[in-house]
Amino acid sequence: MDLATLIGLLLAVILVIGGIVVGGEPGAFVNFPSLLVTVGGTFGATIMANPMERIRGVGKVLRRAFFAESPDLIGLVQTLVSFAEKARREGLLALEDDTSELDDQFLRKSIQLVVDGTDPELVKGILDTEIGLLEDRHAAGKQMFDTMAELAPAFGMLGTLIGLIQMLRNLSDPDALGPGMAVALITTFYGSFLANVICIPVSRKLAVRSAEEVLSRELMVEGVLAIQAGENPRIVEEKLKVFLPPQLRDVLDEEKNRDGKGEER
Amino acid sequence: MDLATLIGLLLAVILVIGGIVVGGEPGAFVNFPSLLVTVGGTFGATIMANPMERIRGVGKVLRRAFFAESPDLIGLVQTLVSFAEKARREGLLALEDDTSELDDQFLRKSIQLVVDGTDPELVKGILDTEIGLLEDRHAAGKQMFDTMAELAPAFGMLGTLIGLIQMLRNLSDPDALGPGMAVALITTFYGSFLANVICIPVSRKLAVRSAEEVLSRELMVEGVLAIQAGENPRIVEEKLKVFLPPQLRDVLDEEKNRDGKGEER
Amino acid sequence: MDLATLIGLLLAVILVIGGIVVGGEPGAFVNFPSLLVTVGGTFGATIMANPMERIRGVGKVLRRAFFAESPDLIGLVQTLVSFAEKARREGLLALEDDTSELDDQFLRKSIQLVVDGTDPELVKGILDTEIGLLEDRHAAGKQMFDTMAELAPAFGMLGTLIGLIQMLRNLSDPDALGPGMAVALITTFYGSFLANVICIPVSRKLAVRSAEEVLSRELMVEGVLAIQAGENPRIVEEKLKVFLPPQLRDVLDEEKNRDGKGEER
Amino acid sequence: MDLATLIGLLLAVILVIGGIVVGGEPGAFVNFPSLLVTVGGTFGATIMANPMERIRGVGKVLRRAFFAESPDLIGLVQTLVSFAEKARREGLLALEDDTSELDDQFLRKSIQLVVDGTDPELVKGILDTEIGLLEDRHAAGKQMFDTMAELAPAFGMLGTLIGLIQMLRNLSDPDALGPGMAVALITTFYGSFLANVICIPVSRKLAVRSAEEVLSRELMVEGVLAIQAGENPRIVEEKLKVFLPPQLRDVLDEEKNRDGKGEER
Amino acid sequence: MDLATLIGLLLAVILVIGGIVVGGEPGAFVNFPSLLVTVGGTFGATIMANPMERIRGVGKVLRRAFFAESPDLIGLVQTLVSFAEKARREGLLALEDDTSELDDQFLRKSIQLVVDGTDPELVKGILDTEIGLLEDRHAAGKQMFDTMAELAPAFGMLGTLIGLIQMLRNLSDPDALGPGMAVALITTFYGSFLANVICIPVSRKLAVRSAEEVLSRELMVEGVLAIQAGENPRIVEEKLKVFLPPQLRDVLDEEKNRDGKGEER
Repeated sequence: MDLATLIGLLLAVILVIGGIVVGGEPGAFVNFPSLLVTVGGTFGATIMANPMERIRGVGKVLRRAFFAESPDLIGLVQTLVSFAEKARREGLLALEDDTSELDDQFLRKSIQLVVDGTDPELVKGILDTEIGLLEDRHAAGKQMFDTMAELAPAFGMLGTLIGLIQMLRNLSDPDALGPGMAVALITTFYGSFLANVICIPVSRKLAVRSAEEVLSRELMVEGVLAIQAGENPRIVEEKLKVFLPPQLRDVLDEEKNRDGKGEER
Repeated sequence: MDLATLIGLLLAVILVIGGIVVGGEPGAFVNFPSLLVTVGGTFGATIMANPMERIRGVGKVLRRAFFAESPDLIGLVQTLVSFAEKARREGLLALEDDTSELDDQFLRKSIQLVVDGTDPELVKGILDTEIGLLEDRHAAGKQMFDTMAELAPAFGMLGTLIGLIQMLRNLSDPDALGPGMAVALITTFYGSFLANVICIPVSRKLAVRSAEEVLSRELMVEGVLAIQAGENPRIVEEKLKVFLPPQLRDVLDEEKNRDGKGEER
Repeated sequence: MDLATLIGLLLAVILVIGGIVVGGEPGAFVNFPSLLVTVGGTFGATIMANPMERIRGVGKVLRRAFFAESPDLIGLVQTLVSFAEKARREGLLALEDDTSELDDQFLRKSIQLVVDGTDPELVKGILDTEIGLLEDRHAAGKQMFDTMAELAPAFGMLGTLIGLIQMLRNLSDPDALGPGMAVALITTFYGSFLANVICIPVSRKLAVRSAEEVLSRELMVEGVLAIQAGENPRIVEEKLKVFLPPQLRDVLDEEKNRDGKGEER
Repeated sequence: MDLATLIGLLLAVILVIGGIVVGGEPGAFVNFPSLLVTVGGTFGATIMANPMERIRGVGKVLRRAFFAESPDLIGLVQTLVSFAEKARREGLLALEDDTSELDDQFLRKSIQLVVDGTDPELVKGILDTEIGLLEDRHAAGKQMFDTMAELAPAFGMLGTLIGLIQMLRNLSDPDALGPGMAVALITTFYGSFLANVICIPVSRKLAVRSAEEVLSRELMVEGVLAIQAGENPRIVEEKLKVFLPPQLRDVLDEEKNRDGKGEER
Repeated sequence: MDLATLIGLLLAVILVIGGIVVGGEPGAFVNFPSLLVTVGGTFGATIMANPMERIRGVGKVLRRAFFAESPDLIGLVQTLVSFAEKARREGLLALEDDTSELDDQFLRKSIQLVVDGTDPELVKGILDTEIGLLEDRHAAGKQMFDTMAELAPAFGMLGTLIGLIQMLRNLSDPDALGPGMAVALITTFYGSFLANVICIPVSRKLAVRSAEEVLSRELMVEGVLAIQAGENPRIVEEKLKVFLPPQLRDVLDEEKNRDGKGEER
């Protein structure tokens, strides 16, 4: 589990709250009506901007941002190369048993299509469409947080404008000027906090997760098509290694050598 | 009917107005000349930026943002698979009767083209152009709200500048300073409200609706072309299921199993 | 003639000026040196950013934004379908006489190429390049107004900075503070007015006009190529109808029915 | 030589400086430390953002923005059409003598490739790559000014923040408040001036120049390939005329008619 | 080693700090809590937005921005042309010995694929995918600095809002107003400094480095494929020279002439 999202969030929140506490009077930063206008208003506009079932799925999207693991690309290459070897030795049908053990639904379906003898063009067409639509769904989840990141500062400013207008109409008591303005600014603070401490980083992380998942699926498609074409397992490995960043390629080679030695012993 | 747009709008409006009422003097936020400059000016500039018939169609665009239903993708897959089965059993001409019962004009036209024996390349060309131009028309509707979202804060600022300049020339009465500035800020409030509470969420929702409709039409094209090519209904279903998000695929499988069991009984 | 640009401009200008007059002292908003810095400076920088002959063509571009008519797509479809019928009956050469009667230079040239027996690939290549470069020229005209829309507020702010700096150096007379600041803000007002009331809406309208013209030319290319290929006039009409928005298709069908009935009488 | 860049710059600079002089005390706008922070800081960050040799080439880029001529498209069409005629009459090798007289290196190289009997696919590949990389180099030059246009206002604000912080710590002397703030604002003025009066217009002009040059090279490639394919000079002219804007086509036709008449005399 | 990044950074930092020192009281610009909120908060949010292993690789990314050398394109062209000559004379297998001497892993792998007799389509596929994924990894490194450049000013503003709100609640002591506001503004200064003096220039430099490296790899692919196709070394050189900017082509020709003369002596 990649904890960067959680650690980063805690770090940012603690430092901002620390900055508040150091200055004294943290209670001044809690204002329920301001919270309603800024955060509630932002949520309202975000609900407006999205279909209901997408709003309901926000928890799942957040979970992906906070807890999703990076796909195990090395394991994936090893699995696909071993499938390529098996298919070469025993034929494509021999892969049928292995599919049931696969955790990943996309990979399971890909192998199943190949085992079923589907036309390679059609396999590629189906899987590419699937990846494209996965990207669209990821983008839709990310877009919710982008909308919030755009609207939160705007609702913060709306709240501040309301506060300013009310304050400016009652300048008779100059002592109330400062606190009135302080209250007015709290909505701007809330809006900026919601956007920059939560929504923008979450949106960026979702983009990273989506790119990782799409890459792993593209690796699967490349591998499955090569297996279907009956390519040499060595070539399959060469093709799939391209998808790994350089450091992972070294890890893969090391593991292979270790296995090789292990076998020799 | 997807009520998210309406619910979200009500939530955002109520919270912002609530924030005004809590602070007292809601009457201070109603200023007719400010409304004319900001909202009227924004409308004027938006009329400038668009051809007349597009301005006239704004009601239809708003209705789509507020009341359009998400297309029933599951029903669509079932319809197309049943057509594929019928076409296989009884030939393409047998579909002619079914087209008249279809609500969707695009699907009706697509099937009609196939029944008429139009060349597959030509069918694909016509339908793809149709979808591309549909997207363009959707984008044109959305663009009206984008223009308003861009111009409303600018007209709000224009109004505030006018108010400020007038106020600054008459500083002799310091008691008028606050209220004068309050009035000047109201146009900024109006502009920001129009942009962030209405135009931006509506524009985002229109984008979602457009993407949904385009996806459903792409599903239709994929299905109709597969039917024309005489493909196996099982393959047709496989191809079309790709267009469904994972949760809908499960629903489709469940319904199929239930139907299957129902038949067995 | 589409009057939306003019009507919208008048509406926006009248409302903004109305907002000024209601507040009293409209004379305070006329300041010649401020006008020179903001509007003149913006023009200077826009001249810098463009080649001379493009600056000279700005009148033509403005005329397109204000007075250009939407192309008559229905008439175009009817013309092309009638050409397709004639070409089928009497051969492509028979179209030569009709070309001289065509107002549209692009259509005339397209038909001429076909009549001259030019290779279809070459016809398509020449016409596609022509449309692409037309889009580029339209974009260049639009870009002038985009540049002005970007620079006008910046020059407005430059003027306000100049005014502020001069005012701040002479704070000895507090009575001059307000009016000094009022004058400083006038340039910001001018810059924002020029950008948001004129340049942005004009730029958006130019984009709409360009898209309309490009669409009508793409319709012509589709039609001319179909005619050259000797396609069935019914198919040609089917292909071209795709370019019409749904409401225009109904109009086309109505006119056709009326003509049909007329003939029957 | 297109003087628009120079004329526009002078106009903008004179109007802004005029605005300063009219307000009196132009000396207040000259502040050496402010200049160092804003302009020097912007240059430093721009050097950071670019490789050394690109920084060294900035003079060449500026010269292109200020003094480059628009390519003579008409002359180019005439040259290429005359080459097409010669090649038809005397063979491709006959063009060898003409290449040495060509000023343009790209055209010379293109003709040379054709004379050398290089494979047409390869000629097209080499020339297209060349144009693509030319665009990249142009974009790199433009990007320097874009970076400066982005950073100059930021460094201006940094300077103003420095001035404000220093001023606010010494509020004991209220008479120093105004002038202190005036000095603080001068860096914002410098940053905005550098960005909007110089960098943005130069960047836009560079984009125009790049598009013009790329267009003229695309015209050359089209012409050279047509010559290599031995196409009819009339067709070559038809193909190349497409690259001219409508008004230049008329000029070309006029010149041709005049030449024709001249020959007849 | 390209020192522009270091020199530019020093220049910008010295000028900004100089601007601070000239104004007196540089100590006022050091404030530890402000630093924690702005820089620490920005780091926290950036950690949130990225997977852990990418955060760990930030040092490597920074090193590339500061110390990476531009690839030696001339040497590369010479190497590939010499390989082309050798392959023509002695066959592709003769290149095997040379690969071990190559520093560049990508080039070594490319040649190895060719020597192994891999199918040309496959070589191109593998190398293109490799370049595409290299670009993605570069973009991911750059994106970290883009995120920081976006968030740093936002966290600066958050800190300033905190300071302002605290100050406005305690207006009883007017003497504390100025210094309180000064402290509040320091976070804005930090945020703007971090974004504009460090993150934006680093991000831009990373983009330049990435483009250079991608170009050099595209040159390698072009060369290796030409070698595999057994093309004439003169043609190979012609093809590869296209990738050099004009000044480097002259250098290449000079070196060649010098070598030629050297040989003649």
